[in-house]
Amino acid sequence: MKKLINQPENVVQEMIEGFVAAYPKSLKRVPNTNVIVRADAPVQGKVGIVSGGGSGHEPAHGGYVGKGMLDGAVAGEVFTSPTPDQVFEAIKAVDGGKGVLLIIKNYTGDVMNFEMAAELAEAEGIQVLKVVVNDDVAVENSTYTVGRRGIAGTVFVHKISGALAEMGASLEEVAAVANKVVENLSSMGMALTPCTVPAAGKPGFTIGESEMEIGMGIHGEPGIERSEIKSADEVAEILLNKVLDQLQLNENDKVAVMINGLGATPLMELYIVNNKVSKILKEKNITVHETFIGEYMTSLEMAGCSITLLRLDDQLTELLDASADTIAFKK
Amino acid sequence: MKKLINQPENVVQEMIEGFVAAYPKSLKRVPNTNVIVRADAPVQGKVGIVSGGGSGHEPAHGGYVGKGMLDGAVAGEVFTSPTPDQVFEAIKAVDGGKGVLLIIKNYTGDVMNFEMAAELAEAEGIQVLKVVVNDDVAVENSTYTVGRRGIAGTVFVHKISGALAEMGASLEEVAAVANKVVENLSSMGMALTPCTVPAAGKPGFTIGESEMEIGMGIHGEPGIERSEIKSADEVAEILLNKVLDQLQLNENDKVAVMINGLGATPLMELYIVNNKVSKILKEKNITVHETFIGEYMTSLEMAGCSITLLRLDDQLTELLDASADTIAFKK
Repeated sequence: MKKLINQPENVVQEMIEGFVAAYPKSLKRVPNTNVIVRADAPVQGKVGIVSGGGSGHEPAHGGYVGKGMLDGAVAGEVFTSPTPDQVFEAIKAVDGGKGVLLIIKNYTGDVMNFEMAAELAEAEGIQVLKVVVNDDVAVENSTYTVGRRGIAGTVFVHKISGALAEMGASLEEVAAVANKVVENLSSMGMALTPCTVPAAGKPGFTIGESEMEIGMGIHGEPGIERSEIKSADEVAEILLNKVLDQLQLNENDKVAVMINGLGATPLMELYIVNNKVSKILKEKNITVHETFIGEYMTSLEMAGCSITLLRLDDQLTELLDASADTIAFKK
Repeated sequence: MKKLINQPENVVQEMIEGFVAAYPKSLKRVPNTNVIVRADAPVQGKVGIVSGGGSGHEPAHGGYVGKGMLDGAVAGEVFTSPTPDQVFEAIKAVDGGKGVLLIIKNYTGDVMNFEMAAELAEAEGIQVLKVVVNDDVAVENSTYTVGRRGIAGTVFVHKISGALAEMGASLEEVAAVANKVVENLSSMGMALTPCTVPAAGKPGFTIGESEMEIGMGIHGEPGIERSEIKSADEVAEILLNKVLDQLQLNENDKVAVMINGLGATPLMELYIVNNKVSKILKEKNITVHETFIGEYMTSLEMAGCSITLLRLDDQLTELLDASADTIAFKK
């Protein structure tokens, strides 16, 4: 295992410490928890937004805490859901009296633990709504998931619901726009190499030297096709076609595009993938409003990428364009 | 070779196409060149700033083109200096009548080709000044370098000279502040794994399964010590101590810190490295003004990191804090 770490069992604690130490003006840690919140949390009179999940997907989710996106992020152990009490701590820390929205990627453990936290919060009089993100169109059910998985498109849910919350909307309005994003969101990924959970010490699965896997999840869950490595153009076409099928876009529809690296993929390769993606969308007369390329939701040191499209109407466009000031997403 | 590419000989062209296609509002390509410039270039009455070098270091340098940083970036083939005529095209494309500063990482090929381009430009009446960045304190001379190499600290030179140029300073003033950054800048890196130039098809060197190399350059140039993998804390201490020795900081000095990933290093590991770096600096009573963690200057899919410190006075602090709007660096 080639990793820049100390003791494998301490990676999450040391990561959170090192992260908060880097950005003391923007972020603070809720003492004795794995919860990171805006430095000015709770913001009175604003809907609070909390997301999170297992660690190993950095910059998700702590990197999206800040003005115009999340109020708080909860980190579990690597690829492990945060416990209900940790999520509850996050809810309490960001509640500014207007209720809290939980943005949950669709993994059974996350859904269960966030729901339990919501119940704890409601018992204390904090109004909570939830949105479950299931943008991964690769497979219908998966290792840790009933229904489709949530992957990188989740960042668009953070961005857009965060913008509306910042404008003073109600909890119901913020939850409604988050659900609207989910309904217009579609992603799919692929992997060239596996990744190693530090405590396990060896890769969670193997891919042959000349193989790749299409449709793989961000925890290494099986995809839909194991094949010889294909060209970047072929990969882009396969992923994008599945994403387009799901969204049923029409000519002149407008989208935001995300080409997400899973951890070990050079930006050069993501730009090459975008070269094909942008050409296919142009041929189909689909308007690209904005393209995001980089590492938005990773799988430790997995090599591979995912492609996300978000169909935009006027409301979603305005909210996507609104300012955001977080570590990993600035506008 | 596990890469998301098409033909290895086309990676740079397809990368540039895919990059420009992603950001049409911010950037444009000078036709028939590997030069990317600000969409509004040339900016009349402002000093133009050009940097560049071989490809494979993304987001450097195209990611730093934009308001408050570079006016133009020139890309060579992978790990290969751009030719003088390409650099000359960049100079012409950004010249707004107030002269052009070239920011050159200290590699023999880059220095030679940028100098030849400067001569071509001066023959056409464009005033050109150069600054050579040599922040890597690992080794005095190296495979492709006479004197110390230029690595990730170069991004601070872009940021600070770009901010001063944006304020309307003269070419001499912008060059002077760029040199001031270089004098106060110190970096050092390490690698866990090698990287593969696409056209070569195999890694440029090997590191054993349980080995790491301290002081390695961003093209895989040898460092100063090949050893068993050390802990993140030990690595942080070794790199930071060498960087601190070079800068000869005193108590209460103020610095900017950059923890740079070389391409395949998870953000989690960079945060863990920062955890130790921030503690060491605190113990030494050195004030951290701002910390930057991420992939700023990479080596394709190399795993490893570099640590950079920049000593700040009031002028450098103000310029570092000034707004910047580029793809890879926003303030």
